[in-house]
This record gives sequence, C-alpha cells and structure tokens, in this order.
Amino acid sequence: MNSFDFYSPTYFVFGQDRERETGKYVKRFGGSRVLVVYGGQSARRSGLLDRVQDSLSAAGLYAAELGGVKPNPRSGLVYEGIDLCRREHIDFLLAVGGGSVIDTAKAIAAGAVYEGDFWDFFSGKAPEKALPVGTVLTIAASGSEGSPDSIITNEKTLEKNAAEADCLRPCFSVLNPALTESLPPYQTACGVTDIMAHAFERYFTNTPDVETTDRMLEGVLLAMLHEGRRVMENPRDYEARANIMWAGMVCHNDVMGVGRKQDWNSHHLEHVLSAVYDCAHGAGLAVIMPAWMRYCVEHGGETRFAQMAVRVFGCQMDFAQPKRTALEGIRAFQAFLKSIGMPLSFAEIGADPADIPRLVEMNHIGGGVTGGYVGLDRQAHTEIYEIAAGVRS
Amino acid sequence: MNSFDFYSPTYFVFGQDRERETGKYVKRFGGSRVLVVYGGQSARRSGLLDRVQDSLSAAGLYAAELGGVKPNPRSGLVYEGIDLCRREHIDFLLAVGGGSVIDTAKAIAAGAVYEGDFWDFFSGKAPEKALPVGTVLTIAASGSEGSPDSIITNEKTLEKNAAEADCLRPCFSVLNPALTESLPPYQTACGVTDIMAHAFERYFTNTPDVETTDRMLEGVLLAMLHEGRRVMENPRDYEARANIMWAGMVCHNDVMGVGRKQDWNSHHLEHVLSAVYDCAHGAGLAVIMPAWMRYCVEHGGETRFAQMAVRVFGCQMDFAQPKRTALEGIRAFQAFLKSIGMPLSFAEIGADPADIPRLVEMNHIGGGVTGGYVGLDRQAHTEIYEIAAGVRS
Repeated sequence: MNSFDFYSPTYFVFGQDRERETGKYVKRFGGSRVLVVYGGQSARRSGLLDRVQDSLSAAGLYAAELGGVKPNPRSGLVYEGIDLCRREHIDFLLAVGGGSVIDTAKAIAAGAVYEGDFWDFFSGKAPEKALPVGTVLTIAASGSEGSPDSIITNEKTLEKNAAEADCLRPCFSVLNPALTESLPPYQTACGVTDIMAHAFERYFTNTPDVETTDRMLEGVLLAMLHEGRRVMENPRDYEARANIMWAGMVCHNDVMGVGRKQDWNSHHLEHVLSAVYDCAHGAGLAVIMPAWMRYCVEHGGETRFAQMAVRVFGCQMDFAQPKRTALEGIRAFQAFLKSIGMPLSFAEIGADPADIPRLVEMNHIGGGVTGGYVGLDRQAHTEIYEIAAGVRS
Repeated sequence: MNSFDFYSPTYFVFGQDRERETGKYVKRFGGSRVLVVYGGQSARRSGLLDRVQDSLSAAGLYAAELGGVKPNPRSGLVYEGIDLCRREHIDFLLAVGGGSVIDTAKAIAAGAVYEGDFWDFFSGKAPEKALPVGTVLTIAASGSEGSPDSIITNEKTLEKNAAEADCLRPCFSVLNPALTESLPPYQTACGVTDIMAHAFERYFTNTPDVETTDRMLEGVLLAMLHEGRRVMENPRDYEARANIMWAGMVCHNDVMGVGRKQDWNSHHLEHVLSAVYDCAHGAGLAVIMPAWMRYCVEHGGETRFAQMAVRVFGCQMDFAQPKRTALEGIRAFQAFLKSIGMPLSFAEIGADPADIPRLVEMNHIGGGVTGGYVGLDRQAHTEIYEIAAGVRS
C-alpha cells in the first residue's frame, strides 16, 4: 500500500425530504448570498427548485439563479456564472442537479475568486481557493457530491478536462434518493455504469497489498449488480435508489481508492466519445470499458481480471487457465450492462469506426504511454476503440 | 435504508515516517500551545515521542506533556489533563498512542472548555465544543482516530461510559502502520478482533435494504481474515499492518454504518468484563461475541448469521436448515480467533462464572430490553455470559 492523504470533509444529509433543510446547511457553512445552479426545467416542474428556494428564504438568504447546465457541461456557462457571482456579490454556490450541474458550480466557485481565466484550473493549475459549494443531488452517478473533482468541456477546443483540489469538495451534500425516482431508466442505468466504472478504475492497479480497499470495492460492485437490476425492475424502488446513491458517493470520495495507483484509462478513452458524439458518459463507458478490459487481459492483465471474475461475478476459477476466467468475468459484466439496457457497441451510441484515427488523435498521447494497470500506447488506444467498434475481436 | 447524517472531516496522513509531519498539521488546524498525551514509556523508548516533539518544535509550537494513560482509561487522568490545559493555556490536544490515549485526549479536550464536570458528557449530555484534537496512532483497533466517540471508565463507580459528538472527531490523524510493528502479537490480535467487532456491530441489524454497506462490511471482514493471519505469521509485515490500520478507521468512522440501526450489545456485554477483570477489550470481545452470536441464532436471528457464514466465512448455505449454516459461521469465526491467539473462554481472561449475577447487575438493564438485531433482556444477558463461561451450550 502506498502512502496517501485522505480528506473528505463533506457533511452528508441523506434521506427523504431532506432538501427542505438546505437553507440551514447553507447558513451553517457561511453562505448568505447564494447562486443556485441547475440544469433544465425538470427541476422547476417537479417542484424541487421551489422547495429549495423556500428553504433558502426561510433561512433568510438571498438567492440568484443560473439554469441551463447541459450534460457534458460546457465552459460558456461557467464564464457566465463567474460574471454573475461578481455582479451579485455571491458567497455560496448551491448546485441542484447531477454531476454536470455540480461540476459547473465547482468551476464557477473556483473561477469567481481567481483573477485569471478559470480554464487554467482545467489545464494543470490547481485552484487554491474557491467559494463554498453545497449540493442537492438528483442523479446518482458522478460522485461529484463528495469528490474534489470537476470535469468541464471547453467549447472551443472540445477538450474535456478535469480540475481537482480539496477546495472543490462540497461542504455539504443533500442526498435524497427519492429525487432520482423520476429519472428515465436509461439515465438511471448510465448512473449505475458510471458508479461501477469509478470502482473499477480504482480496482485495477499494480500496487500490491491493497486487500482492504479491494474487498470494499468488490463489495460495492456486488451491491450494484443487485441494486442495479432491482431499480430497472421498479424505478420507484426507493431502497434500491438509496443503495445506489450512497454507492455513488463512496465510489468517488476515494475512501476505497487510497494507497494505490489508479487506472483512469477507460474514463479517458470514453471522454472523447461523449465529447464527439454527445452520448451519455455512462453509455460511452458501457461501450469502452469491456473493450479496454479485453485488451488488458490479452496484454498481461489477466490476474486482476480473474480476481474480479471470481469475486464480483461469481465465476469459477480456472486455475490452469486464469485467462479463461478473466474473459468469462468480462462477458458477465457485459451481460449485466445489457440487462440494464446499456449500449454495447459503437453503433448504439452513434459512433463510426471510421472516426477511430481522429478519436485516438484527440487523446493526445503522441509517442507516450498512458500509465495504469496495463500501460496504453497509441496502438493500444486504436485497438481498444476497434474492439469496441466490433472490427477487432 | 434509514435517513442519516454523515460527517467525517478528519484529515488522514497515512504512511511511513509521516509522524515527522505532525507539527505542520497541528499548525494547519490552529494549534500553538499543545498538550501531548501518551501512555507508557514505550513511546519514549522507541523514539516516537522525540520525533513528534522535534516536529512540533520545528513548527515553532509550545508543547506540554501528559503521560501515563492506561488501557481502559480512567477519569482521574482526564481531570489532571483538564487542570493542566487551563494552567498552561493549551489550545490543542495531541494524542500519541492507541484508543485509550486518544479517548483520554478527547475527554480532556471537551472538559477543558466546559465549566462543569467533564463526566456530564459521559452521562448523556453531548459536548457542544472541545479543543481541537490530533492523533498519531500506534495501535490499530479502536477507530477512535476517525470517530466522534470517547470511552472512559469512572474510577469511583467503575462505569465504562461513552461520549459522542462531532466536536470530538480528530481534525487530523497520522497513521503510520510501521508504528504498530513493535506491538506484542497478543495486542495486535486484540486490535484485529476489535476492528472486526466494529464491523459486526454495524452488520447485525433489522433495517432492511442495506446491501451497499452490508457488502462493504463483509469486504473488510474478509480482508481482516486474510491480513489478521498474515500479521500473526510475520509481525513485521508492513503491508498487512497497513491494511489493518485503514480497516480500523473505516470500520468506525461510520461510512459503513450509516442508514441502519446498529447493535452494540456485544460491546456493552464486554465493557463489564474489561472493567471488572481489566482484560484487554479485544480479548473480552473474543470471549463474548461468539456467545452473543449463538444466543442470537437461537432466538430468531439466524438469517443474518447465515448470510455472514456464507459471505464472510465461505460456508455453504444449507437452504433447508439455515441455522446450521449460521452456527457453522460462528464456529469458523471462533476458529479464526483461536488461530490468532485470542482467548475463547471465561477462564482465559480470569473471569469467574460465579460473578455472572454481578456482571449482569452492572449492565443496568433492570426490567428493560437492550435493543438490537435481537433484543436482550436480563435473562438474555445472563445466558450469554453463561454461554461464554461454558456453563450453558
């Protein structure tokens, strides 16, 4: 196990109706002039925005609004939010939505107290301070409600980059699983896929002796196989949604990712897909992850995939030929993804195999190797997209 | 899953040699006049106290010292520490030790800023504020390094009571697994037992639909079976100790205990044993937990014990007679405890079956029932001690 720092100071407020307490928590964490960031009109139509606004009013807080955040959130709205914060003397960002809304609020929070261009923070510079951010979560997926990350797409360059800093961790997050009940099944399944990806990307590592976090990750993955199927059977199953929501947080606040080198290759391979084809992030992951897994098994990574197959997917270990077990596990993962309605092919997300050279180009790997459980060079990127496109087995 | 609040703001500093950074963290969290609380002379002999003191000096901090904390820590030293804090204008408590030292520092931290008797906080009143506490952990067991709890024994009454409040959560904890390498095997095994108990006490619940945290708890328990045996084979195995140390934290900061009613009956049944016989807490747990488990299985609790048997101890499910599987799991747990050198009987911890009526009396249950997975009345307490004493099967 490697040395590490771990810090997750977010206060989580979990349960039915708890968005009604939002004002109390904004106040507790020092907010008085609040910018409420949200996405489309569903938050208004459902009455959620009104309930949150009522709670802010009851606490005597001023609130401005910024709506219109879209999936794969763009830099334009961040600039708009930063201007609004300065004009309105905002001292607290409240994100009401899913990962895209939260990431937008985090980017605004860092940009509002920075003299330069906020995109600096998405180009390698770590923000040192930010306005406090609170969240009312409506989609279990990104884990942004408990993470130090934000991911924004630059409108001009289509680069989809991440910023990371402790000051971007929300000071509180309201998690009411019932708020996710109105999500379409497809988006719910995309969320489950993203949560599992966050577990896998921590799981696949060459760092030895990480049994405690390995076992915790396997545990959450097992739970997602169970709860994912359950929520697809009944979208109004509060209990399944509650289990998925807490899993979304623990899979990305890093309590199970500490002390190991992580492997974010499949997330990076996917970011290009959702940037180019504007598919849901979870859908892109469902297409790319099994392809990435197959490539890894064929290039020296069979050990951990066999472990995954046995411990998570209940496969029997083939001790003489562990690779067989590893591949069986990947097939079981794909079968699960299919069972919850996820796409498995390039065609299903509108991607064209002819684009592969361009996709690889966009990953900017040049002559290098992106590190991870199995290092990937340019050729590897090409082959993984080809496996995903069905033009290579 | 029940509604809950979860808040674990402690900054964890994990890895080799990291106690050398202690001064930096005390300063970051606002300390300038520090009371260093520790136990026996081993912390001095090993050079640990000197390293910590050097780090405080390098950061320009004043440090006073209070040594002599004993296992099952007593109220007397807490009063002494409170006086010292006031006399020396202490603004930060630094615990260098295991759970007893940390719990003593927490009690002093709350008492030093309170007009009344600190024991109020161990008699039901929640402390609202406390001096900040940091820790340098030397024993993986109690989880106090990341928890809001403190447990102190009243010297006059022999009551062993707990206080709990967010203000008692350490602001930082240094976790260097190498510091635990010099622990005698018996104490190491006691720690593993205590960590597993913290998982079990969350695991056994009647709250339905807690699959995510169930699976995480099972994961840590599986890891402890592996790492516990490994550290007994080689006490200098840093990696095993690192896995155990992180498990100790996650099993008690409550990230896996949220949203469910917990069952702390076996801890309560044990506290009396360590208070009366002054045995190690982990040793008392090894004696009482399997007895408590057996009682539960015989009184309606077979379902979750069968689940434990299958998922944690790898037993085959007897679908026709789940109770058989449940009992097989308990025997497997006892076999594990024995394999790491833990006592399994009253005699091994110096307890006398003739004392049972007195032990039951000390639990103050009167005519009531202590809640939990299986509720326990006075008769149940008696029977569990009798099972542990071997006078009832």
